[in-house]
Amino acid sequence: MDSKRKKYLLEESEIPTHWYNIQAEMPNKPLPILHPKTKEPLKPEDLYPIFAEELARQEMNQTDVWIEIPEEIRNLYKNYRSTPLVRAYGLEKALDTPAHIYFKNESVSPVGSHKLNSAIAQAYYCKKQGISNITTETGAGQWGAALSYAARAFGLELAVYMVKVSYEQKPYRRSIMQTFGAQVTPSPSMSTRAGKDILTANPNYQGSLGTAISEAIELAMNTPNCKYTLGSVLSHVTLHQTIIGLEAEKQMELAGEYPDIVIGCFGGGSNFGGISFPFMRHNIQNSKKTRFIAAEPSSCPKLTRGVFQYDFGDETGYTPLLPMFTLGHNFTPANIHAGGLRYHGAGVIVSQLLKDGMMEAVGIDQLDTFKSGVLFAQSEGIIPAPESNHAIAAAINEANKCKESGEEKVILFNLSGHGLIDMAAYDKYISGDLVNYKLSDEDIAKNISELEKII
Amino acid sequence: MDSKRKKYLLEESEIPTHWYNIQAEMPNKPLPILHPKTKEPLKPEDLYPIFAEELARQEMNQTDVWIEIPEEIRNLYKNYRSTPLVRAYGLEKALDTPAHIYFKNESVSPVGSHKLNSAIAQAYYCKKQGISNITTETGAGQWGAALSYAARAFGLELAVYMVKVSYEQKPYRRSIMQTFGAQVTPSPSMSTRAGKDILTANPNYQGSLGTAISEAIELAMNTPNCKYTLGSVLSHVTLHQTIIGLEAEKQMELAGEYPDIVIGCFGGGSNFGGISFPFMRHNIQNSKKTRFIAAEPSSCPKLTRGVFQYDFGDETGYTPLLPMFTLGHNFTPANIHAGGLRYHGAGVIVSQLLKDGMMEAVGIDQLDTFKSGVLFAQSEGIIPAPESNHAIAAAINEANKCKESGEEKVILFNLSGHGLIDMAAYDKYISGDLVNYKLSDEDIAKNISELEKII
Repeated sequence: MDSKRKKYLLEESEIPTHWYNIQAEMPNKPLPILHPKTKEPLKPEDLYPIFAEELARQEMNQTDVWIEIPEEIRNLYKNYRSTPLVRAYGLEKALDTPAHIYFKNESVSPVGSHKLNSAIAQAYYCKKQGISNITTETGAGQWGAALSYAARAFGLELAVYMVKVSYEQKPYRRSIMQTFGAQVTPSPSMSTRAGKDILTANPNYQGSLGTAISEAIELAMNTPNCKYTLGSVLSHVTLHQTIIGLEAEKQMELAGEYPDIVIGCFGGGSNFGGISFPFMRHNIQNSKKTRFIAAEPSSCPKLTRGVFQYDFGDETGYTPLLPMFTLGHNFTPANIHAGGLRYHGAGVIVSQLLKDGMMEAVGIDQLDTFKSGVLFAQSEGIIPAPESNHAIAAAINEANKCKESGEEKVILFNLSGHGLIDMAAYDKYISGDLVNYKLSDEDIAKNISELEKII
Repeated sequence: MDSKRKKYLLEESEIPTHWYNIQAEMPNKPLPILHPKTKEPLKPEDLYPIFAEELARQEMNQTDVWIEIPEEIRNLYKNYRSTPLVRAYGLEKALDTPAHIYFKNESVSPVGSHKLNSAIAQAYYCKKQGISNITTETGAGQWGAALSYAARAFGLELAVYMVKVSYEQKPYRRSIMQTFGAQVTPSPSMSTRAGKDILTANPNYQGSLGTAISEAIELAMNTPNCKYTLGSVLSHVTLHQTIIGLEAEKQMELAGEYPDIVIGCFGGGSNFGGISFPFMRHNIQNSKKTRFIAAEPSSCPKLTRGVFQYDFGDETGYTPLLPMFTLGHNFTPANIHAGGLRYHGAGVIVSQLLKDGMMEAVGIDQLDTFKSGVLFAQSEGIIPAPESNHAIAAAINEANKCKESGEEKVILFNLSGHGLIDMAAYDKYISGDLVNYKLSDEDIAKNISELEKII
C-alpha cells in the first residue's frame, strides 16, 4: 500500500442525472431481437408480458442518447454514490510500472457490488407501473442480494431462483437475500414446468443460470401482477450501469487525466459496458483512441472463442433470440469461483461493438485472476470479488506492457465488487487447491454446432 | 428504506487532524495500572518491552487533551474516511418514532469495521520505532483482519493467534488475514508456554480471547524486534477511535443537530469510547446533558453486573493489573455470535466514567440484537455486524421510549461494522436456531470471588 493513494469523490450535486444510451450513437446498431417462435423482430410491446414497460422501452431505445434518472432512483443512489475513483499508487509501486492505474470502486455499495445500480432502477420502474411481485435468478448471489435490497426499498415481493449448487455452497449470499426479506428457491425446483422437466430427466442436476432464468420467467408469466428482472446481458441493465462510467469521467477530470485503456470483467456485459460506454462515446464523437478491454474467464470464452449468432438467453428457450457472441445456450461453464461470469452469451450491444472492432476481449485463467487479486489486496487494501479479479489481471497485463515499453499510459478498470463473501475461494487459492480449466476446440464446437438449428 | 435518507460526508480537508484524549479532562482520572508482581503503579517505560514506546506513552498520557495524528496515518485514513453520518429516516419510519436517529457508518472501511482506525495507528508507531514484527490475538477476526491490512501497509510481519473455535468456525476471516499476508495460528497452540500448559491440562480446549492474548504477548516478548498490539480495552486504542466521534461532531453540525443520546456496542470499549468521548467532552466542559449508553451482551455483562476491581487483561496473568469493571479473568462468555464483545473486562477509562455516573450501560439479549439487526437491514439497507446489533437494539429501545413520551430526541449510534462475513449467524437466526443465554447470580459470583486473591 502507498500513503500517496488518492481518492476522488463527487459532490452530491455532481452525481450524473442521466444515463448514457450508447445504442443511439453506435455506428452500427445492434441487429433486432427476434421472437423465439416466429423469428420476427420484436417491438417493446412484445416484452411487456415479461418486463416492466419502461424497461422494455429502454431495451430497444435506439434514439435517445440521454435518459433521465428519476429522482427516486437518484435518492437511493445517493446512499452510496458517488463511489470513489482511486489512483492505485500501491499497485503501481508493486508492479514498478510507469503506467498510471485508476480503479472505480463499486465495492462500497451496501451489498458490495455494482449490481445495485440496476436493481434499484428495475425495482423502481416495476413499482411505478403498479407491479407487486418480481422474480429473478441468481448464480453466485450478487444480483440476488442487490435486487433483494431494491425490492425491499420499494416494497415489492421478490422470488429468487438460485442455482442449486450455489444455494448449497454459498449459504451466506442466500442469507443476505433472506435477511432483506426475499424468498429464495434452489433451482431446478418443482415449482415450474421447466424445473420439473429437468429434474425428471436428471434428478441430481446441480442447476445452471440458464435453467434458473427459465424458472424465473415462467413464474413471472404465470403469476398475476408479477414481472421478471435480469441482472446483466440486456441493454437496459447496461444503460443503468453507465452511472459508473459517467461518474468516472468527471472524477478522471478531477485527477487531470483521461484513460488510454478502460477495462471491465465480463459476464453478460453490464459492468463492462457501465464503465466503458461513457468513454467510448468520445471515441465515437471526438475521435479519442481509448482502448476498451473486456476480461472474461478463459473457461467461459464467448467473446474470444465464441461465434456471433442468434441464440437464446436461457436454457429452455423462453427468451427472445438475441444476436450475440455465444458459446451456445447449452454450454455448461466450468465451476470457477467467479460465478457471475459463468454465462454462455454476451449482451447485444457489446457483441455488435466487438464485431465492429470498437473494443477488445481477453481470456484470463482462474489462477491468474486470484494471483492478481491477492497482489491487489496486498497493495491496495481491498479484497476484490473473484469476478473483479479478471479486470485486475487484465490491467496488470497492460501495466506490465507499459513497463517494457516505458509508456506512461493511463489505465482505468472497474472494481465491480469486494470479495469478503467469497473468502472460501481465496482460501482454496492460498491452499493451492484451485485449478485452471482448459477448453478444447471440440468442447467449444459442440454446443455452437447446435446453434445452426435455431435460426 | 426511505428515499429521504440523508448522508453527510466531510471534505478531506475537514477530517480531524488530532485525536481527543479524554484522560486529560476527566473529573476523576483512572486509577493507576499496577505491575502484576510488585503491585506498584506502572510508568510508560515499564510497558516498552511489550508495546511500541509511543503507544505506551499514549496509554498513560493524562495531560495532553489533543494528540496530533501523524500525516502517514491521516493519509491512510483518507482511503476510507470520512465515513458517512446517516440520518436513518427508514428506521424512524419503521418505528413510527418522533426521535431523530443518526448512525455513523464505520462499516465502509475496506475491512468492514472501525478496527482499522487503531490498527493503522499501531502499525505506524511500531514501524516508526524500527520494529519489524508484531503479534496480536483475535476472536471473531475483525481486529485480526484490520491489523493484517495495516501491517501490510507498513511492511510489518504479523503473527495472529486466533481463538481455535473461531479459527475452525470462521475460515472466512482467517482467509482475509492470510490474503493480506499474515500468519494465523489457532490458539491454544504448542508455540508458547501458555498454550502448551493449557493444552497439556486440557487437550480439547477450544480457546478463549484471554488465552490468545497470553500467547501473543509471550511470542512478542520472546521474539527480537517484535511488539504486541491489542484491538480494544486499552486507552491508546480508544484514543485512536475518537476519530469516529470527532468526525460525527462535525457531521452533526452539518445536519444542524446535537445528540441527546450517544450509543455504542461494548466489548472492551474502543468503539463506544470512540463515538462517545468527543461528545462527552461537552458534558465536561459546557454542561451539555447528553446521555451515553454502552450496549453489552446480557451474556457478558461486565458493566451491568460485574464489579469494579483490579484484574488481569488475560487468562494467564501476563498483563498488568487494570482497574476495571470485570467478570473475572477466568470468566468464559457464552458462545454468542457477537464474538467481538466476548471479553471479561472493560477499559480503565470507561470503567472510571461508569463509576462516576458519566455514562450508562444496558445488557441486550442475543435474540433482541438480531431482531433489531434485521429491522435495520430491511429499513436502512445495510446488514450490520452482530456486535453493532447491540447498539441498534439500544437505539431502538430509546426511540420507542420517545414514541411513548412524544419526545423528539436526537439519537446517534455507531454502526461499528457490517455483517456480510457473519451471515451464518443471520442464517441461524432466520432458521430459529439462535438462543439467549441466561447468567445466574451464582455464575457471575464464581469468577468474581476469585478476584480477591489478586490484590
